[in-house]
Amino acid sequence: MKAVCLLSGGVDSATALAVARREGFETYTLSFDYRQRHRVELAAAARLSAQLGAREHKVLEIDLRAFGGSALTSDIEVPKSRAREQMSAGIPVTYVPARNTVFLSLALAWAEVLGAFDIFIGVNAVDYSGYPDCRPDFIRAFETLANLATRAGLEGGRGFRIHTPLIELTKAGIIRLGMELGVDFSLSHSCYDPAGTVACGRCDSCLIRRAGFAEAGVQDPVEYAP
Amino acid sequence: MKAVCLLSGGVDSATALAVARREGFETYTLSFDYRQRHRVELAAAARLSAQLGAREHKVLEIDLRAFGGSALTSDIEVPKSRAREQMSAGIPVTYVPARNTVFLSLALAWAEVLGAFDIFIGVNAVDYSGYPDCRPDFIRAFETLANLATRAGLEGGRGFRIHTPLIELTKAGIIRLGMELGVDFSLSHSCYDPAGTVACGRCDSCLIRRAGFAEAGVQDPVEYAP
Repeated sequence: MKAVCLLSGGVDSATALAVARREGFETYTLSFDYRQRHRVELAAAARLSAQLGAREHKVLEIDLRAFGGSALTSDIEVPKSRAREQMSAGIPVTYVPARNTVFLSLALAWAEVLGAFDIFIGVNAVDYSGYPDCRPDFIRAFETLANLATRAGLEGGRGFRIHTPLIELTKAGIIRLGMELGVDFSLSHSCYDPAGTVACGRCDSCLIRRAGFAEAGVQDPVEYAP
Repeated sequence: MKAVCLLSGGVDSATALAVARREGFETYTLSFDYRQRHRVELAAAARLSAQLGAREHKVLEIDLRAFGGSALTSDIEVPKSRAREQMSAGIPVTYVPARNTVFLSLALAWAEVLGAFDIFIGVNAVDYSGYPDCRPDFIRAFETLANLATRAGLEGGRGFRIHTPLIELTKAGIIRLGMELGVDFSLSHSCYDPAGTVACGRCDSCLIRRAGFAEAGVQDPVEYAP
């Protein structure tokens, strides 16, 4: 059976892809060049697709910089802190308006063409940045929508399922699961504001990642700026 | 108050835009270059945005041809008939998988950045092609999703509203309403398979349009192939 797997190139989406593979799906990975500050993550997505045996990897371009409104898609600065505990509360400026809605919609489009009814997304509502579109309620609402939006909704038959295998795990739990499933995290990229390919170590994404590796008792294989 | 209005350049979206203007919204029109067969409609969208006083018109590129699966985004032929009554039943091959989900998601993204909570879409569930993503249930599900997907969903305050002013009208009713509101339909484009800018007159979109103008007792101002 085929599944479309959203893949950013970070720890979470790589692990979600590995779960899809373990569950026996033939995986089709989908990444987006949305003119994100950290477009370098697309190379990581390609590497991980290959490492984890994806049948096909597509990169779709959507210029979310045309809308802006986020530190990842405009000139707003990416906030930096020294430690996980110092990250600011609330929805951070790295939130990209409606990003997961847009990404899931396009995953749905591809799934419908492929005849796939399973979509994997590595959202997590425990150790995360506080984005609204990572919550279980959002995912359930998208699943309902998917089943109304498509041929299947009108013609009956199997419904779409949005799989969120990581939604209740801690970052350390995700890292342990990924390693168990053979994910090579040295191929991944998480940093929102890298210098070339070198992670800054101090943006929210780096801080959450580093705290997760530390808690899991595993050496993080990627390089950080000094 | 600001509203984002999806605008393809056809009769329905132009009329929905005119309704938004009549209701007092400052309108931001959004069109998509999705590598559709009838990309010429984008020029119509630009003309109508100007004619109907949109504050800003954006055209976003998304290559839905990367997925294919529709006569509008692949080499599948666009079906032609001689009359409205001869159109085939069921979901036609011009259905573009998840298109309205993708378009509404991107409208939501722009709305959130603009601080707008109103989105207009010219869907119609009476004189239409039988696409699943034109039905009232789909629209309501998207509205629910929008209010979970965004800052507003987490922080409270005003919710998003998806306006579908045409959903229960016939094509003739839409044309009458559009004329009443001053839409210049000579600027519009509906054909799925034009030769240059000249409408074929025999695809589903042309047939529905022509039957609507005939029923409304109005001369259709666009040019059709002989």
